[in-house]
Amino acid sequence: MLLPMTTLSGQDLRSRDPRLPLHRRLADALTEAIRRGEYSPSDPLPSESEIARTCDVAIGTVRQAMAQLREDGLIERRQGRGTYVRRADFSHSLLRFFRFGDGGEDVPESSILASATVAASAATSRALGLDEGQDVLHLHRVRRLGGRPVVHEDVYLPLPEHEALVALEPGEYPNLLYPLYEERCGVVVVRAGEELTLSSATQRDADVLRCSVGDPVVAVERVTTAVDGRVVEHRLSRGDARTFRYRVEIS
Amino acid sequence: MLLPMTTLSGQDLRSRDPRLPLHRRLADALTEAIRRGEYSPSDPLPSESEIARTCDVAIGTVRQAMAQLREDGLIERRQGRGTYVRRADFSHSLLRFFRFGDGGEDVPESSILASATVAASAATSRALGLDEGQDVLHLHRVRRLGGRPVVHEDVYLPLPEHEALVALEPGEYPNLLYPLYEERCGVVVVRAGEELTLSSATQRDADVLRCSVGDPVVAVERVTTAVDGRVVEHRLSRGDARTFRYRVEIS
Repeated sequence: MLLPMTTLSGQDLRSRDPRLPLHRRLADALTEAIRRGEYSPSDPLPSESEIARTCDVAIGTVRQAMAQLREDGLIERRQGRGTYVRRADFSHSLLRFFRFGDGGEDVPESSILASATVAASAATSRALGLDEGQDVLHLHRVRRLGGRPVVHEDVYLPLPEHEALVALEPGEYPNLLYPLYEERCGVVVVRAGEELTLSSATQRDADVLRCSVGDPVVAVERVTTAVDGRVVEHRLSRGDARTFRYRVEIS
Repeated sequence: MLLPMTTLSGQDLRSRDPRLPLHRRLADALTEAIRRGEYSPSDPLPSESEIARTCDVAIGTVRQAMAQLREDGLIERRQGRGTYVRRADFSHSLLRFFRFGDGGEDVPESSILASATVAASAATSRALGLDEGQDVLHLHRVRRLGGRPVVHEDVYLPLPEHEALVALEPGEYPNLLYPLYEERCGVVVVRAGEELTLSSATQRDADVLRCSVGDPVVAVERVTTAVDGRVVEHRLSRGDARTFRYRVEIS
């Protein structure tokens, strides 16, 4: 069904630049509605025939518009369940390449060690597009594989977007953060950039990762963007370099 | 024109499994001819109409077969010049992410420090599919950016495939190795796998890279495959980790 808040209408399409083909205008209207959060990755978009009816256009026009949104990576078909706003797919994240030699591990278990509102550092303000010193929520998080700490992370979240998390106790955080951002803050992650550099273990790294000060550390800096185009997370992850093994195929 | 050595013929197609559509049989015949080295990346394949004539099939059949070979990554169209056997594209190689902070550098300059026939180590024999201790050609190579050493590499090449290189003096090697393998040894590289791990500088690393023993080093192991499916190179590259910065985009 159409969500009650939808702004999609024939009126809206007719008010757009008439030099654009109708399917382009519909694609623009749908894109803007998704960016404003009118549709979520948890509920299907209205069906093609519902959109055609609501906007008073031919079903072929809706199909062309939906095809463009799929190509733009904004929506995806889920087999037998309809079309949804697409979440970013982190299966190629560099953070998946921290592994222990003994194979056979699966999803890391994460826990929050500490949570506090802090003044943004210069790097975090730059990443999040804030003024230096503005308040952000800081989470210190550790990921474990088979009980062993493999990566620890400083996660910085802009406020008030993530206000709903400020009162959470560390023990109340679930294993995965992005579903939490989505559920509690309406923040839908659509893309991220990650940069890997090499570093050496500080005392803090050594304490959390149980390695020695000076040991090689892989550092991954992630900047995460939401469906509305805002940067919603700055994350600095550090793991023992001896557990990192990364592969590319060239052809 | 058809190369004089081509095995492509209507006779050959008719001798293949008749349950396969003709364009599949032609694609198989072309694939085998490419794997045998009957066509090279330096000379265009015969035109579609020449292949149609040679094999006594419709031009549409040739187009379907060529489309499959392009999809398989075996051939590529070069604008206005025809269709060629495709070389591997190394623009995503991990070795391209060693950089100095001062930007603005281009292609690294490479030189061979030493060349010798040696007995293959256990790791190299495994990678090349040889018996341990078999002779291989070993090159010790350094890549420089702006005159500064950024990576040094141990390159192991199976013999007799690379016999033509054994007599070359280090100073006779050009900047790029793969065109040399192709020209002197008829070895066309079509794919490679690279694996990145972290390590510490040995005395040898320190001497070549001008860093200190124990400094963090990025190690990239490459296994390179030729068009005929043989593994034709085992390469161990090591660079100063402080010059390495790698980025992925997630969406």
